[in-house]
Amino acid sequence: MGKTVRKLQVVSPVPADIDIANSVEPLHISEIAQELNLSSQHYDLYGKYKAKVLLSALDELRGSQDGYYVVVGGITPTPLGEGKSTTTVGLCQALGAFLDKKVVTCLRQPSQGPTFGIKGGAAGGGYSQVIPMDEFNLHLTGDIHAITAANNLLAAAIDTRIFHESTQTDKGLFNRLCPPDKEGKRSFSDIMFRRLKKLGISKTRPEELTSQEIKKFARLDIDPSSITWRRVMDINDRFLRKITIGQGPEEKGMVRETGFDISVASEIMAVLALTTSLTDMRERLGKMVVGNSKAGDPVTADDLGVGGALTVLMKDAINPTLMQTLEGTPVLVHAGPFANIAHGNSSIVADRIALKLVGPGGFVVTEAGFGADIGTEKFMNIKCRYSGLTPQCAVIVATIRALKMHGGGPEVVAGKPLDHAYLTENVALVEAGCVNLARHITNTKAYGVNVVVAVNKFATDSEAELNTVRGAALSAGAFDAVICTHHAHGGKGAVDLGVAVQRACENVAQPLKFLYPLEISIKEKIEAIAKSYGASGVEYSEEAEKQIEMYSKQGFTSLPICMAKTQYSFSHNASAKGAPSGFVLPIRDVRASIGAGFIYPLVGTMSTMPGLATRPCFYDIDLDTTTGRVIGLS
Amino acid sequence: MGKTVRKLQVVSPVPADIDIANSVEPLHISEIAQELNLSSQHYDLYGKYKAKVLLSALDELRGSQDGYYVVVGGITPTPLGEGKSTTTVGLCQALGAFLDKKVVTCLRQPSQGPTFGIKGGAAGGGYSQVIPMDEFNLHLTGDIHAITAANNLLAAAIDTRIFHESTQTDKGLFNRLCPPDKEGKRSFSDIMFRRLKKLGISKTRPEELTSQEIKKFARLDIDPSSITWRRVMDINDRFLRKITIGQGPEEKGMVRETGFDISVASEIMAVLALTTSLTDMRERLGKMVVGNSKAGDPVTADDLGVGGALTVLMKDAINPTLMQTLEGTPVLVHAGPFANIAHGNSSIVADRIALKLVGPGGFVVTEAGFGADIGTEKFMNIKCRYSGLTPQCAVIVATIRALKMHGGGPEVVAGKPLDHAYLTENVALVEAGCVNLARHITNTKAYGVNVVVAVNKFATDSEAELNTVRGAALSAGAFDAVICTHHAHGGKGAVDLGVAVQRACENVAQPLKFLYPLEISIKEKIEAIAKSYGASGVEYSEEAEKQIEMYSKQGFTSLPICMAKTQYSFSHNASAKGAPSGFVLPIRDVRASIGAGFIYPLVGTMSTMPGLATRPCFYDIDLDTTTGRVIGLS
Repeated sequence: MGKTVRKLQVVSPVPADIDIANSVEPLHISEIAQELNLSSQHYDLYGKYKAKVLLSALDELRGSQDGYYVVVGGITPTPLGEGKSTTTVGLCQALGAFLDKKVVTCLRQPSQGPTFGIKGGAAGGGYSQVIPMDEFNLHLTGDIHAITAANNLLAAAIDTRIFHESTQTDKGLFNRLCPPDKEGKRSFSDIMFRRLKKLGISKTRPEELTSQEIKKFARLDIDPSSITWRRVMDINDRFLRKITIGQGPEEKGMVRETGFDISVASEIMAVLALTTSLTDMRERLGKMVVGNSKAGDPVTADDLGVGGALTVLMKDAINPTLMQTLEGTPVLVHAGPFANIAHGNSSIVADRIALKLVGPGGFVVTEAGFGADIGTEKFMNIKCRYSGLTPQCAVIVATIRALKMHGGGPEVVAGKPLDHAYLTENVALVEAGCVNLARHITNTKAYGVNVVVAVNKFATDSEAELNTVRGAALSAGAFDAVICTHHAHGGKGAVDLGVAVQRACENVAQPLKFLYPLEISIKEKIEAIAKSYGASGVEYSEEAEKQIEMYSKQGFTSLPICMAKTQYSFSHNASAKGAPSGFVLPIRDVRASIGAGFIYPLVGTMSTMPGLATRPCFYDIDLDTTTGRVIGLS
Repeated sequence: MGKTVRKLQVVSPVPADIDIANSVEPLHISEIAQELNLSSQHYDLYGKYKAKVLLSALDELRGSQDGYYVVVGGITPTPLGEGKSTTTVGLCQALGAFLDKKVVTCLRQPSQGPTFGIKGGAAGGGYSQVIPMDEFNLHLTGDIHAITAANNLLAAAIDTRIFHESTQTDKGLFNRLCPPDKEGKRSFSDIMFRRLKKLGISKTRPEELTSQEIKKFARLDIDPSSITWRRVMDINDRFLRKITIGQGPEEKGMVRETGFDISVASEIMAVLALTTSLTDMRERLGKMVVGNSKAGDPVTADDLGVGGALTVLMKDAINPTLMQTLEGTPVLVHAGPFANIAHGNSSIVADRIALKLVGPGGFVVTEAGFGADIGTEKFMNIKCRYSGLTPQCAVIVATIRALKMHGGGPEVVAGKPLDHAYLTENVALVEAGCVNLARHITNTKAYGVNVVVAVNKFATDSEAELNTVRGAALSAGAFDAVICTHHAHGGKGAVDLGVAVQRACENVAQPLKFLYPLEISIKEKIEAIAKSYGASGVEYSEEAEKQIEMYSKQGFTSLPICMAKTQYSFSHNASAKGAPSGFVLPIRDVRASIGAGFIYPLVGTMSTMPGLATRPCFYDIDLDTTTGRVIGLS
């Protein structure tokens, strides 16, 4: 990776993220692409510092071998975060800029909503960051905007269809759906054959249909109360969480309660993250279920005639965005699904391209959202299941701060000063907290990967505390445990981690082993995951039972499970720190993202639309109109 | 323009638009840029066929002279449209590819909503089109998505602020707005000084404020019933026209009725179209008024602390997008405000850049939405007033079909077969309809420009009919009147038009003269415009009177007027064809876009959110996943 590597001038104490980001002049992204041997026909520039890598790159590299595949997870975090993104970036800077390896970092695209709400970007921090930071945190190359557009086109199609069905006869509806051409001939459009096939009608000309078939074909008969498809917006707009629509006089009283989620919670984001090709994306978008007919049959985007249009809206979004780290190593930013109601991992497409680009001996490092109980688990059982890719190493990021919390330290609250227990040496607290780390190690190791623990060192951590973690990690079966200072020193601070990860990748003995097979029942799968949390059993609400029965009847049993659980505990109770066990995991409700391809049980209530505080951070954000530079973003 | 010019292989009968568009391989956009002598530092590529031209180009060209400036308007149209965009593109293809002139076409960006609703793109038609057509009609370079994001961030800020004000004391609110830093010191952020200045408070430190000043500063006290700011979405979603928000339990019963408009109806779109620089855009966005305080004072985006963040979201959108015509001439696509509640013209920024790029002897052709009574009028009195630019020539596009309608022909309805009156020769009808054309000529000529009539010829038009129009146009004072066949023949079919436009530009005698000065009252301005429609007077509703009084009191009297009127008649009555006169123009309501910079009286009801039909055209749209090509878009 020689030519693009940039030497950092490290300053202490570490300046603000934005100041570090602005102190470095990014390379033209074509230089980064060239270092990856990516020919210019396989990427499209989006300005000077971003490029979309086209799927055609994958076609060309089809014969090449993959590099090593590393996933970064974390222990159960404090609300302050333990530096997982920063470690992911720092590790790559070490591998690329100090250990002379080919490396690509695969990151999620952050939602734009929180950028203007609460401080804290997702581009890493300190001397381990993706740049330019403002482009990373704002529109990027428009993927989330495309998701918003596609999601909301489908939403409009649903309500409009219900409206038109309510005012028309079967025959009238059918005649409008298949209008006569200039010669008076009616025909089905291509997408209509998908619905005809689903209905078991093999006729090819509209005039052949019986009136019974006309009714079945033309009348989706959507049960408004069954609609699970909500509108989305990439804004923290709490007043849209629950709304009533259709109150205009032209909508003739067809009001309905619904709401908006933030765009990254859209199923289309999960589809983008899990798809493997344009053809696969077309199929997944078409089979997304938006609700049921009054007879209980699932109604899909293709039933509404809109699966093709959604694919057209998403056709550029499928191409990952190439950016760079502070030290000039390449980054692919792509997809950012929620880590609770979705699987919280960046895209399969980006990882695949990256693995081919780095080739044998190279490294792809990808981050999994939330703690390893959620992020790494879903990485393995959902993402790797769909991609067929096999990781060699899983990194688990830990901090002394979080371990002390798990050992019984006082509550850590964002925005409030840390208790002194977190600022002074307390080996006993750390030692007690290592049960949390140990369980994450055990669970992760069971997938057949080597586990490397990365202790993200803070200035207040003592040698004795750090040694305690190392010892505990190794006893719990970690391949290695390494102290890192990449926040303060960039890649140089993660060289030991890089070496450990390299050794871990070169020494894998086991094949990838999933936590559960797909063939068992929905409940058995839920229970297998619950067991990995330490639960002694699972309890289902009446609603959950009903939904499981419905999905089983509809033929969706063989999908993987995506638990929507708090990230702040192994259990459903955010305040149960350490390694709780013997609890019964309550399943409040069960939902499904059929297009993305998973069932998601709700363990508690998940907010899918954040709000804004009295003083959102947009008060600090402005444009320096003389330089065109963004100020106040962090 | 020699090198990029492409020779078209014209086929008869004219194939479908999409087939023509797909039959031509576009040039890499850097070739188009090079022909314009645009250095690569002044544009950013967005893929292979689009580039954003940076405002820095304008800085570099500041000393250069402008080219000729041509605006294309139309007679009062039928619902089928008279080919104004097509004529704009065809004229440019003629000037660039046949008359060897430097030329840039300036077009509006179409809304994505209708792309999936009703057939008919905005990229021109036949052999006069902008390509690639799918990129033109879909996300383009993300400008409309940026507008949606900015519009809705402001909307979220409004409701959230009302919410937080309702639950906090003056002091609590103030302390949250100016929180203490690590040393316990409070401070104002830069944007807060804008509000302090507005309130006449010159203190610089929070602790200096009296409790009365604290209340004035921290409590915006927005009257929910006065809020004019609505949310937007670039989707035809009729069920969002009127909604109730805030029904979630956390919003504590603070429900409110509001609604969504389509994104291009956002005031931010009008700001983008009328701004002249980043600094100017920052000021316009900050002073947008969202509603009033309970005391009747206007509340702005800057009062809400969000003007800077809006500018950051819009910083790339201010750069126009470079594309190309079928014959390889350059096009700048930028902004697409509504033509009724806004001014319906593409951006000042794009026109300015284009005028410098073509230089003396070159041509910039820009289209004004709707008929000339609305589009050209607003081009002159709003757009040219803000830009300071002076057009030399105004083209008025006419068709025999529309003139027959104005002459008393039967109603023309989209989707229904045309009456035979429109398909066979009827000189008398044409002659009678020319009163409409004549009034447009008189009105347009009054601005001091030379008027060239372009008769967009259809296959069914007879020589006698065409000659009638030419004669009528010349008697009404047109500089020239030309028959064009650019739809069937590309630029070659508009060579005569190009020559006429060139002569018109070279022979301007008069200076630009506005229809009204800004200093007269709101009512006097409305009446001046109404007179140009043929009205004998104006009638104001009670609501309109109240609003005019309020805007006058708030100090907004000196803004230009933007009439929200039907395009289907000079009058408010869409069925009054020809050149109606003696009617009283009713003003139903009066609103204002203070940031964009105009007052808009509502003459009738304007729909700002379209709907979808039973069979929207998305039924035909899909992606060919093997080639990546969009199919079914038209």
